[in-house]
Amino acid sequence: MEARPTTAADPAPAATAPAPRRRRAGYRRLPVEQRREQLIAVALELFASRPPEEVGLDDVAEAAGASRPLVYRYFAGGKQQLYEAALRTAADELTSRFAVPPTGRPSEQLAAALDGYFAFVAEHDAGYSALLRGGSVVETARTSAIVDDVRRAALKRTLRHLGVREAGPRLTLLVRSWIAVVEGASLSWLDEGRTLPVDGLRDWLVDQFTAMAAATALHDPQTAEVLAGLLALEGPRADRAELLRAVLEAR
Amino acid sequence: MEARPTTAADPAPAATAPAPRRRRAGYRRLPVEQRREQLIAVALELFASRPPEEVGLDDVAEAAGASRPLVYRYFAGGKQQLYEAALRTAADELTSRFAVPPTGRPSEQLAAALDGYFAFVAEHDAGYSALLRGGSVVETARTSAIVDDVRRAALKRTLRHLGVREAGPRLTLLVRSWIAVVEGASLSWLDEGRTLPVDGLRDWLVDQFTAMAAATALHDPQTAEVLAGLLALEGPRADRAELLRAVLEAR
Repeated sequence: MEARPTTAADPAPAATAPAPRRRRAGYRRLPVEQRREQLIAVALELFASRPPEEVGLDDVAEAAGASRPLVYRYFAGGKQQLYEAALRTAADELTSRFAVPPTGRPSEQLAAALDGYFAFVAEHDAGYSALLRGGSVVETARTSAIVDDVRRAALKRTLRHLGVREAGPRLTLLVRSWIAVVEGASLSWLDEGRTLPVDGLRDWLVDQFTAMAAATALHDPQTAEVLAGLLALEGPRADRAELLRAVLEAR
Repeated sequence: MEARPTTAADPAPAATAPAPRRRRAGYRRLPVEQRREQLIAVALELFASRPPEEVGLDDVAEAAGASRPLVYRYFAGGKQQLYEAALRTAADELTSRFAVPPTGRPSEQLAAALDGYFAFVAEHDAGYSALLRGGSVVETARTSAIVDDVRRAALKRTLRHLGVREAGPRLTLLVRSWIAVVEGASLSWLDEGRTLPVDGLRDWLVDQFTAMAAATALHDPQTAEVLAGLLALEGPRADRAELLRAVLEAR
Protein backbone atom coordinates (compact mmCIF):
# COMPACT_ATOMS: atom_id res chain seq x y z
CA MET A 1 0.00 0.00 0.00
CA GLU A 2 1.21 3.46 -0.76
CA ALA A 3 1.99 5.73 2.14
CA ARG A 4 -0.09 8.82 1.74
CA PRO A 5 0.40 12.11 3.51
CA THR A 6 -2.13 12.61 6.24
CA THR A 7 -2.11 16.38 6.36
CA ALA A 8 -4.42 18.38 4.16
CA ALA A 9 -1.63 20.42 2.62
CA ASP A 10 2.14 20.59 2.45
CA PRO A 11 3.69 20.60 5.87
CA ALA A 12 4.97 24.04 6.72
CA PRO A 13 8.71 24.16 6.29
CA ALA A 14 10.65 23.80 9.51
CA ALA A 15 10.88 27.11 11.35
CA THR A 16 13.72 28.99 9.75
CA ALA A 17 14.76 32.54 9.19
CA PRO A 18 13.13 34.08 6.10
CA ALA A 19 16.43 34.10 4.20
CA PRO A 20 16.59 30.42 3.11
CA ARG A 21 12.93 30.55 2.13
CA ARG A 22 13.59 33.40 -0.22
CA ARG A 23 16.43 31.46 -1.82
CA ARG A 24 14.00 28.73 -2.87
CA ALA A 25 12.10 30.86 -5.29
CA GLY A 26 9.91 28.00 -6.54
CA TYR A 27 8.85 26.72 -3.13
CA ARG A 28 5.11 27.04 -2.76
CA ARG A 29 2.52 25.43 -0.56
CA LEU A 30 0.23 23.21 -2.59
CA PRO A 31 -2.84 21.17 -1.65
CA VAL A 32 -1.98 17.51 -1.07
CA GLU A 33 -3.39 15.99 -4.26
CA GLN A 34 -2.02 18.81 -6.36
CA ARG A 35 1.46 18.44 -4.87
CA ARG A 36 1.38 14.69 -5.39
CA GLU A 37 0.40 15.14 -9.01
CA GLN A 38 3.04 17.80 -9.47
CA LEU A 39 5.78 15.54 -8.10
CA ILE A 40 4.68 12.72 -10.40
CA ALA A 41 4.56 15.06 -13.40
CA VAL A 42 8.04 16.38 -12.63
CA ALA A 43 9.35 12.83 -12.17
CA LEU A 44 7.82 11.74 -15.48
CA GLU A 45 9.54 14.63 -17.21
CA LEU A 46 12.90 13.66 -15.71
CA PHE A 47 12.43 9.94 -16.45
CA ALA A 48 11.63 10.91 -20.05
CA SER A 49 15.02 12.51 -20.63
CA ARG A 50 17.29 10.21 -18.61
CA PRO A 51 17.30 6.51 -17.73
CA PRO A 52 15.70 5.88 -14.30
CA GLU A 53 19.01 5.02 -12.64
CA GLU A 54 20.29 8.50 -13.42
CA VAL A 55 17.36 10.30 -11.84
CA GLY A 56 17.68 10.89 -8.10
CA LEU A 57 15.11 11.99 -5.57
CA ASP A 58 17.08 15.20 -5.19
CA ASP A 59 16.63 15.95 -8.89
CA VAL A 60 12.88 15.55 -8.52
CA ALA A 61 12.82 17.75 -5.43
CA GLU A 62 14.86 20.44 -7.11
CA ALA A 63 12.84 20.41 -10.34
CA ALA A 64 9.62 20.57 -8.30
CA GLY A 65 10.90 23.43 -6.16
CA ALA A 66 10.39 21.22 -3.12
CA SER A 67 12.61 19.88 -0.37
CA ARG A 68 13.84 16.31 -0.22
CA PRO A 69 11.97 15.65 3.07
CA LEU A 70 8.80 16.91 1.44
CA VAL A 71 9.17 14.42 -1.41
CA TYR A 72 9.68 11.68 1.20
CA ARG A 73 6.49 12.76 2.95
CA TYR A 74 4.59 11.93 -0.22
CA PHE A 75 6.67 8.93 -1.23
CA ALA A 76 7.94 7.30 1.91
CA GLY A 77 9.30 4.43 -0.19
CA GLY A 78 11.65 6.90 -1.88
CA LYS A 79 12.58 6.78 -5.53
CA GLN A 80 11.20 3.29 -6.17
CA GLN A 81 7.75 4.29 -4.91
CA LEU A 82 7.82 7.54 -6.86
CA TYR A 83 8.91 5.64 -9.97
CA GLU A 84 6.06 3.17 -9.62
CA ALA A 85 3.50 5.95 -9.05
CA ALA A 86 4.81 7.76 -12.12
CA LEU A 87 4.69 4.55 -14.13
CA ARG A 88 1.10 3.90 -13.05
CA THR A 89 0.11 7.43 -14.12
CA ALA A 90 1.84 7.00 -17.48
CA ALA A 91 0.23 3.58 -17.96
CA ASP A 92 -3.26 5.00 -17.32
CA GLU A 93 -2.62 7.80 -19.76
CA LEU A 94 -1.38 5.42 -22.46
CA THR A 95 -4.37 3.14 -21.96
CA SER A 96 -6.75 6.09 -22.36
CA ARG A 97 -5.14 6.89 -25.72
CA PHE A 98 -6.20 3.52 -27.13
CA ALA A 99 -9.78 4.79 -27.06
CA VAL A 100 -10.21 6.09 -30.59
CA PRO A 101 -13.69 6.92 -31.95
CA PRO A 102 -15.18 3.93 -33.81
CA THR A 103 -15.69 5.92 -36.99
CA GLY A 104 -14.04 5.62 -40.36
CA ARG A 105 -12.53 2.55 -41.98
CA PRO A 106 -10.80 -0.04 -39.74
CA SER A 107 -7.39 0.95 -41.10
CA GLU A 108 -8.10 4.60 -40.20
CA GLN A 109 -9.06 3.65 -36.65
CA LEU A 110 -5.90 1.60 -36.30
CA ALA A 111 -3.83 4.47 -37.66
CA ALA A 112 -5.43 6.90 -35.18
CA ALA A 113 -4.66 4.59 -32.25
CA LEU A 114 -1.07 4.28 -33.47
CA ASP A 115 -0.70 8.05 -33.75
CA GLY A 116 -1.73 8.34 -30.10
CA TYR A 117 0.73 5.62 -29.19
CA PHE A 118 3.69 7.21 -30.95
CA ALA A 119 2.87 10.62 -29.44
CA PHE A 120 3.04 8.96 -26.01
CA VAL A 121 6.34 7.24 -26.87
CA ALA A 122 7.82 10.55 -28.03
CA GLU A 123 6.79 12.25 -24.79
CA HIS A 124 8.19 9.57 -22.52
CA ASP A 125 11.24 8.64 -24.59
CA ALA A 126 14.02 7.51 -22.21
CA GLY A 127 11.62 6.24 -19.53
CA TYR A 128 9.61 4.23 -22.06
CA SER A 129 12.74 2.80 -23.56
CA ALA A 130 14.35 1.83 -20.22
CA LEU A 131 11.16 0.21 -19.03
CA LEU A 132 10.54 -1.96 -22.08
CA ARG A 133 14.16 -2.90 -22.54
CA GLY A 134 14.38 -4.55 -19.13
CA GLY A 135 17.27 -4.94 -16.75
CA SER A 136 16.74 -1.50 -15.23
CA VAL A 137 17.43 -1.25 -11.50
CA VAL A 138 13.95 0.11 -10.87
CA GLU A 139 12.30 -2.82 -12.63
CA THR A 140 10.46 -5.18 -10.30
CA ALA A 141 7.66 -7.69 -10.48
CA ARG A 142 5.34 -4.72 -9.74
CA THR A 143 6.57 -2.59 -12.64
CA SER A 144 6.36 -5.60 -14.98
CA ALA A 145 2.79 -6.14 -13.84
CA ILE A 146 1.91 -2.52 -14.73
CA VAL A 147 3.37 -2.98 -18.21
CA ASP A 148 1.44 -6.24 -18.59
CA ASP A 149 -1.76 -4.41 -17.61
CA VAL A 150 -1.22 -1.98 -20.48
CA ARG A 151 -0.64 -4.85 -22.91
CA ARG A 152 -3.81 -6.55 -21.70
CA ALA A 153 -5.76 -3.31 -22.16
CA ALA A 154 -4.36 -2.94 -25.68
CA LEU A 155 -5.38 -6.53 -26.47
CA LYS A 156 -8.89 -6.01 -25.11
CA ARG A 157 -9.35 -2.71 -26.92
CA THR A 158 -8.13 -4.13 -30.23
CA LEU A 159 -10.41 -7.16 -29.99
CA ARG A 160 -13.34 -4.86 -29.22
CA HIS A 161 -12.55 -2.78 -32.29
CA LEU A 162 -12.50 -5.98 -34.30
CA GLY A 163 -15.97 -6.77 -32.96
CA VAL A 164 -14.75 -9.94 -31.26
CA ARG A 165 -16.38 -11.07 -28.02
CA GLU A 166 -14.51 -14.28 -27.31
CA ALA A 167 -11.15 -14.61 -29.01
CA GLY A 168 -9.72 -18.08 -29.54
CA PRO A 169 -6.01 -18.77 -28.86
CA ARG A 170 -4.85 -18.02 -32.41
CA LEU A 171 -6.67 -14.73 -32.79
CA THR A 172 -5.36 -13.75 -29.34
CA LEU A 173 -1.86 -14.73 -30.40
CA LEU A 174 -2.21 -12.62 -33.56
CA VAL A 175 -3.21 -9.48 -31.67
CA ARG A 176 -0.59 -10.00 -28.95
CA SER A 177 2.06 -10.55 -31.63
CA TRP A 178 1.08 -7.40 -33.45
CA ILE A 179 1.25 -5.44 -30.19
CA ALA A 180 4.79 -6.82 -29.68
CA VAL A 181 5.67 -5.60 -33.18
CA VAL A 182 4.32 -2.15 -32.34
CA GLU A 183 6.44 -2.04 -29.17
CA GLY A 184 9.55 -3.19 -30.99
CA ALA A 185 9.01 -0.69 -33.80
CA SER A 186 8.62 2.17 -31.33
CA LEU A 187 11.85 1.18 -29.57
CA SER A 188 13.70 1.01 -32.90
CA TRP A 189 12.30 4.42 -33.74
CA LEU A 190 13.71 5.89 -30.51
CA ASP A 191 17.01 4.04 -30.96
CA GLU A 192 17.56 5.57 -34.35
CA GLY A 193 16.95 9.06 -33.03
CA ARG A 194 13.45 9.18 -34.56
CA THR A 195 14.94 9.39 -38.05
CA LEU A 196 12.37 7.02 -39.58
CA PRO A 197 9.33 9.17 -40.46
CA VAL A 198 6.64 8.29 -37.94
CA ASP A 199 3.85 8.38 -40.56
CA GLY A 200 5.65 5.75 -42.59
CA LEU A 201 6.12 3.60 -39.51
CA ARG A 202 2.44 3.91 -38.63
CA ASP A 203 1.39 2.90 -42.15
CA TRP A 204 3.85 0.01 -42.04
CA LEU A 205 2.24 -1.19 -38.80
CA VAL A 206 -1.26 -0.97 -40.29
CA ASP A 207 -0.06 -3.07 -43.25
CA GLN A 208 1.59 -5.49 -40.82
CA PHE A 209 -1.74 -5.99 -39.11
CA THR A 210 -3.44 -6.90 -42.38
CA ALA A 211 -0.61 -9.20 -43.41
CA MET A 212 -0.33 -10.92 -40.04
CA ALA A 213 -4.10 -11.40 -39.94
CA ALA A 214 -3.94 -12.95 -43.41
CA ALA A 215 -1.22 -15.40 -42.32
CA THR A 216 -3.25 -16.29 -39.21
CA ALA A 217 -6.41 -16.72 -41.28
CA LEU A 218 -4.69 -19.64 -43.02
CA HIS A 219 -4.60 -21.41 -39.64
CA ASP A 220 -7.76 -20.23 -37.93
CA PRO A 221 -11.38 -19.89 -39.11
CA GLN A 222 -12.20 -17.19 -36.53
CA THR A 223 -9.38 -14.95 -37.79
CA ALA A 224 -10.44 -15.65 -41.39
CA GLU A 225 -13.92 -14.41 -40.55
CA VAL A 226 -12.62 -11.30 -38.78
CA LEU A 227 -10.30 -10.49 -41.69
CA ALA A 228 -13.06 -10.91 -44.25
CA GLY A 229 -15.21 -8.54 -42.21
CA LEU A 230 -12.42 -5.97 -42.02
CA LEU A 231 -11.73 -6.11 -45.75
CA ALA A 232 -15.44 -5.71 -46.44
CA LEU A 233 -15.52 -2.63 -44.18
CA GLU A 234 -12.52 -1.19 -45.99
CA GLY A 235 -14.70 -1.54 -49.05
CA PRO A 236 -13.46 -0.53 -52.47
CA ARG A 237 -10.61 1.22 -50.66
CA ALA A 238 -8.98 -2.07 -49.63
CA ASP A 239 -6.17 -1.05 -51.93
CA ARG A 240 -3.44 -1.99 -49.47
CA ALA A 241 -4.70 -5.57 -49.39
CA GLU A 242 -4.62 -5.53 -53.18
CA LEU A 243 -1.00 -4.35 -53.14
CA LEU A 244 -0.12 -7.03 -50.60
CA ARG A 245 -1.61 -9.64 -52.90
CA ALA A 246 0.41 -8.35 -55.84
CA VAL A 247 3.69 -8.47 -53.94
CA LEU A 248 3.04 -12.10 -53.04
CA GLU A 249 2.89 -13.18 -56.66
CA ALA A 250 5.45 -15.97 -56.87
CA ARG A 251 8.06 -15.44 -59.58
CA MET B 1 35.30 -10.91 -14.06
CA GLU B 2 34.16 -14.25 -12.79
CA ALA B 3 35.96 -15.69 -9.82
CA ARG B 4 37.41 -19.00 -10.86
CA PRO B 5 38.67 -21.68 -8.57
CA THR B 6 42.44 -21.80 -8.50
CA THR B 7 42.84 -25.41 -7.46
CA ALA B 8 43.06 -28.13 -10.04
CA ALA B 9 40.27 -30.15 -8.51
CA ASP B 10 37.59 -29.95 -5.85
CA PRO B 11 39.04 -28.94 -2.54
CA ALA B 12 39.17 -31.90 -0.20
CA PRO B 13 36.37 -31.68 2.35
CA ALA B 14 37.45 -30.30 5.71
CA ALA B 15 39.10 -32.94 7.84
CA THR B 16 36.27 -34.86 9.44
CA ALA B 17 35.64 -38.30 10.70
CA PRO B 18 34.60 -40.72 7.97
CA ALA B 19 31.01 -40.87 9.22
CA PRO B 20 29.71 -37.56 7.75
CA ARG B 21 31.41 -38.31 4.44
CA ARG B 22 29.57 -41.54 4.14
CA ARG B 23 26.29 -39.73 4.71
CA ARG B 24 26.81 -37.63 1.55
CA ALA B 25 26.45 -40.50 -0.85
CA GLY B 26 26.61 -38.31 -3.97
CA TYR B 27 29.71 -36.39 -3.01
CA ARG B 28 32.49 -37.04 -5.51
CA ARG B 29 35.68 -35.25 -6.41
CA LEU B 30 35.58 -33.86 -9.92
CA PRO B 31 38.14 -31.98 -12.03
CA VAL B 32 37.61 -28.20 -11.91
CA GLU B 33 36.08 -27.64 -15.36
CA GLN B 34 33.92 -30.70 -15.07
CA ARG B 35 32.59 -29.63 -11.68
CA ARG B 36 31.89 -26.14 -12.95
CA GLU B 37 29.96 -27.52 -15.92
CA GLN B 38 28.11 -29.94 -13.69
CA LEU B 39 27.00 -27.14 -11.34
CA ILE B 40 25.80 -25.07 -14.30
CA ALA B 41 23.95 -28.04 -15.79
CA VAL B 42 22.27 -28.78 -12.47
CA ALA B 43 21.36 -25.09 -12.05
CA LEU B 44 19.88 -24.97 -15.57
CA GLU B 45 17.76 -27.98 -14.78
CA LEU B 46 16.45 -26.35 -11.59
CA PHE B 47 15.84 -23.00 -13.29
CA ALA B 48 13.89 -24.84 -15.98
CA SER B 49 11.33 -26.16 -13.53
CA ARG B 50 10.99 -23.24 -11.11
CA PRO B 51 11.25 -19.44 -11.39
CA PRO B 52 14.75 -18.22 -10.49
CA GLU B 53 13.63 -16.64 -7.22
CA GLU B 54 12.52 -20.06 -5.98
CA VAL B 55 15.85 -21.73 -6.65
CA GLY B 56 18.40 -21.40 -3.86
CA LEU B 57 22.08 -22.14 -3.79
CA ASP B 58 21.34 -24.96 -1.37
CA ASP B 59 19.05 -26.59 -3.91
CA VAL B 60 21.84 -26.51 -6.47
CA ALA B 61 24.35 -27.92 -4.00
CA GLU B 62 22.00 -30.71 -2.99
CA ALA B 63 21.06 -31.65 -6.54
CA ALA B 64 24.74 -31.65 -7.52
CA GLY B 65 25.72 -33.79 -4.52
CA ALA B 66 28.04 -31.00 -3.42
CA SER B 67 28.36 -28.82 -0.35
CA ARG B 68 27.27 -25.19 -0.21
CA PRO B 69 30.86 -23.99 0.42
CA LEU B 70 31.98 -25.91 -2.63
CA VAL B 71 29.40 -24.14 -4.81
CA TYR B 72 30.66 -20.83 -3.38
CA ARG B 73 34.22 -21.78 -4.29
CA TYR B 74 33.16 -21.93 -7.92
CA PHE B 75 30.68 -19.06 -7.80
CA ALA B 76 31.94 -16.62 -5.22
CA GLY B 77 29.19 -14.18 -6.25
CA GLY B 78 26.62 -16.71 -5.09
CA LYS B 79 23.33 -17.37 -6.80
CA GLN B 80 23.45 -14.29 -9.05
CA GLN B 81 26.81 -15.32 -10.48
CA LEU B 82 25.69 -18.91 -10.93
CA TYR B 83 22.51 -17.68 -12.62
CA GLU B 84 24.45 -15.51 -15.04
CA ALA B 85 26.89 -18.31 -15.86
CA ALA B 86 23.98 -20.66 -16.49
CA LEU B 87 22.28 -18.02 -18.64
CA ARG B 88 25.43 -17.52 -20.68
CA THR B 89 25.70 -21.28 -21.26
CA ALA B 90 22.04 -21.46 -22.31
CA ALA B 91 22.45 -18.43 -24.59
CA ASP B 92 25.44 -20.03 -26.35
CA GLU B 93 23.51 -23.22 -26.82
CA LEU B 94 20.48 -21.42 -28.24
CA THR B 95 22.64 -19.41 -30.61
CA SER B 96 24.29 -22.59 -31.90
CA ARG B 97 20.83 -23.98 -32.73
CA PHE B 98 20.19 -21.17 -35.21
CA ALA B 99 22.82 -22.73 -37.46
CA VAL B 100 20.68 -24.86 -39.76
CA PRO B 101 22.15 -26.32 -42.95
CA PRO B 102 21.52 -24.03 -45.94
CA THR B 103 19.78 -26.74 -47.91
CA GLY B 104 16.17 -27.06 -48.98
CA ARG B 105 13.67 -24.32 -49.66
CA PRO B 106 13.83 -21.12 -47.58
CA SER B 107 10.62 -22.05 -45.75
CA GLU B 108 12.12 -25.44 -44.83
CA GLN B 109 15.25 -23.80 -43.44
CA LEU B 110 13.13 -21.41 -41.40
CA ALA B 111 11.03 -24.31 -40.12
CA ALA B 112 14.18 -26.22 -39.11
CA ALA B 113 15.54 -23.23 -37.18
CA LEU B 114 12.17 -22.84 -35.42
CA ASP B 115 12.12 -26.53 -34.47
CA GLY B 116 15.48 -26.04 -32.77
CA TYR B 117 14.18 -22.96 -31.03
CA PHE B 118 11.05 -24.62 -29.67
CA ALA B 119 13.05 -27.63 -28.48
CA PHE B 120 15.23 -25.21 -26.53
CA VAL B 121 12.20 -23.42 -25.09
CA ALA B 122 10.68 -26.73 -24.00
CA GLU B 123 13.92 -27.73 -22.24
CA HIS B 124 14.31 -24.45 -20.37
CA ASP B 125 10.64 -23.74 -19.74
CA ALA B 126 10.37 -21.78 -16.45
CA GLY B 127 13.80 -20.18 -16.75
CA TYR B 128 13.14 -19.04 -20.31
CA SER B 129 9.76 -17.69 -19.37
CA ALA B 130 10.98 -15.80 -16.26
CA LEU B 131 13.86 -14.29 -18.18
CA LEU B 132 11.85 -12.96 -21.10
CA ARG B 133 8.95 -11.81 -19.00
CA GLY B 134 11.08 -9.37 -17.02
CA GLY B 135 10.80 -8.17 -13.47
CA SER B 136 12.62 -11.17 -12.05
CA VAL B 137 14.85 -10.49 -9.06
CA VAL B 138 17.83 -12.01 -10.85
CA GLU B 139 17.40 -9.76 -13.89
CA THR B 140 20.10 -7.13 -14.25
CA ALA B 141 21.64 -5.02 -16.98
CA ARG B 142 24.03 -7.97 -17.48
CA THR B 143 21.31 -10.58 -17.98
CA SER B 144 19.46 -8.24 -20.36
CA ALA B 145 22.68 -7.82 -22.33
CA ILE B 146 23.01 -11.60 -22.69
CA VAL B 147 19.45 -11.83 -24.01
CA ASP B 148 20.15 -8.96 -26.42
CA ASP B 149 23.23 -10.83 -27.67
CA VAL B 150 21.04 -13.79 -28.57
CA ARG B 151 18.60 -11.52 -30.40
CA ARG B 152 21.44 -9.93 -32.31
CA ALA B 153 22.79 -13.36 -33.26
CA ALA B 154 19.32 -14.40 -34.45
CA LEU B 155 19.08 -11.23 -36.55
CA LYS B 156 22.51 -11.76 -38.08
CA ARG B 157 21.85 -15.40 -38.82
CA THR B 158 18.47 -14.69 -40.41
CA LEU B 159 19.91 -11.95 -42.62
CA ARG B 160 22.70 -14.27 -43.70
CA HIS B 161 20.16 -16.93 -44.63
CA LEU B 162 18.34 -14.29 -46.66
CA GLY B 163 21.60 -13.58 -48.50
CA VAL B 164 21.66 -9.98 -47.24
CA ARG B 165 25.00 -8.30 -46.57
CA GLU B 166 23.91 -4.83 -45.52
CA ALA B 167 20.36 -4.57 -44.27
CA GLY B 168 18.62 -1.20 -44.37
CA PRO B 169 16.52 -0.01 -41.42
CA ARG B 170 13.23 -1.43 -42.71
CA LEU B 171 14.55 -4.89 -43.50
CA THR B 172 16.24 -4.91 -40.09
CA LEU B 173 12.99 -3.84 -38.46
CA LEU B 174 11.15 -6.64 -40.28
CA VAL B 175 13.53 -9.35 -39.03
CA ARG B 176 13.66 -7.95 -35.49
CA SER B 177 9.86 -7.78 -35.45
CA TRP B 178 9.52 -11.34 -36.60
CA ILE B 179 11.96 -12.47 -33.90
CA ALA B 180 9.79 -10.65 -31.34
CA VAL B 181 6.78 -12.54 -32.69
CA VAL B 182 8.66 -15.84 -32.31
CA GLU B 183 9.51 -14.98 -28.69
CA GLY B 184 5.95 -13.96 -27.89
CA ALA B 185 4.56 -17.09 -29.52
CA SER B 186 6.90 -19.33 -27.53
CA LEU B 187 5.86 -17.63 -24.28
CA SER B 188 2.17 -18.04 -25.14
CA TRP B 189 2.86 -21.67 -25.91
CA LEU B 190 4.40 -22.20 -22.45
CA ASP B 191 1.63 -20.17 -20.77
CA GLU B 192 -1.05 -22.39 -22.23
CA GLY B 193 0.68 -25.52 -21.00
CA ARG B 194 1.96 -26.35 -24.50
CA THR B 195 -1.54 -27.22 -25.64
CA LEU B 196 -1.13 -25.55 -29.05
CA PRO B 197 0.53 -28.14 -31.31
CA VAL B 198 4.10 -26.99 -31.83
CA ASP B 199 4.11 -27.96 -35.52
CA GLY B 200 1.14 -25.70 -36.15
CA LEU B 201 2.83 -22.86 -34.31
CA ARG B 202 6.00 -23.33 -36.34
CA ASP B 203 4.08 -23.29 -39.62
CA TRP B 204 2.17 -20.19 -38.45
CA LEU B 205 5.50 -18.46 -37.78
CA VAL B 206 6.83 -19.38 -41.23
CA ASP B 207 3.66 -17.92 -42.78
CA GLN B 208 4.05 -14.85 -40.57
CA PHE B 209 7.51 -14.32 -41.99
CA THR B 210 6.20 -14.35 -45.56
CA ALA B 211 3.29 -12.07 -44.71
CA MET B 212 5.37 -9.60 -42.72
CA ALA B 213 7.96 -9.51 -45.48
CA ALA B 214 5.19 -8.80 -48.00
CA ALA B 215 3.87 -5.90 -45.90
CA THR B 216 7.40 -4.53 -45.56
CA ALA B 217 8.02 -4.91 -49.29
CA LEU B 218 5.29 -2.31 -49.85
CA HIS B 219 7.50 0.19 -48.01
CA ASP B 220 11.01 -0.88 -48.91
CA PRO B 221 12.65 -1.87 -52.23
CA GLN B 222 15.36 -3.95 -50.50
CA THR B 223 12.75 -6.11 -48.77
CA ALA B 224 10.80 -6.38 -52.02
CA GLU B 225 13.91 -7.74 -53.72
CA VAL B 226 14.62 -10.21 -50.91
CA LEU B 227 11.01 -11.43 -50.91
CA ALA B 228 11.00 -11.90 -54.67
CA GLY B 229 14.20 -13.93 -54.34
CA LEU B 230 12.68 -16.10 -51.61
CA LEU B 231 9.50 -16.75 -53.57
CA ALA B 232 11.58 -17.68 -56.61
CA LEU B 233 13.58 -20.16 -54.49
CA GLU B 234 10.36 -21.65 -53.15
CA GLY B 235 9.59 -22.22 -56.82
CA PRO B 236 6.38 -23.87 -57.89
CA ARG B 237 5.93 -24.84 -54.25
CA ALA B 238 5.22 -21.25 -53.17
CA ASP B 239 1.74 -22.50 -52.39
CA ARG B 240 1.56 -20.75 -49.02
CA ALA B 241 2.13 -17.40 -50.71
CA GLU B 242 -0.67 -18.30 -53.09
CA LEU B 243 -3.00 -19.06 -50.18
CA LEU B 244 -2.02 -15.79 -48.53
CA ARG B 245 -2.93 -13.95 -51.71
CA ALA B 246 -6.30 -15.68 -51.85
CA VAL B 247 -7.20 -14.78 -48.28
CA LEU B 248 -6.46 -11.13 -49.01
CA GLU B 249 -9.10 -10.94 -51.70
CA ALA B 250 -11.30 -8.03 -50.65
CA ARG B 251 -14.99 -8.86 -50.48
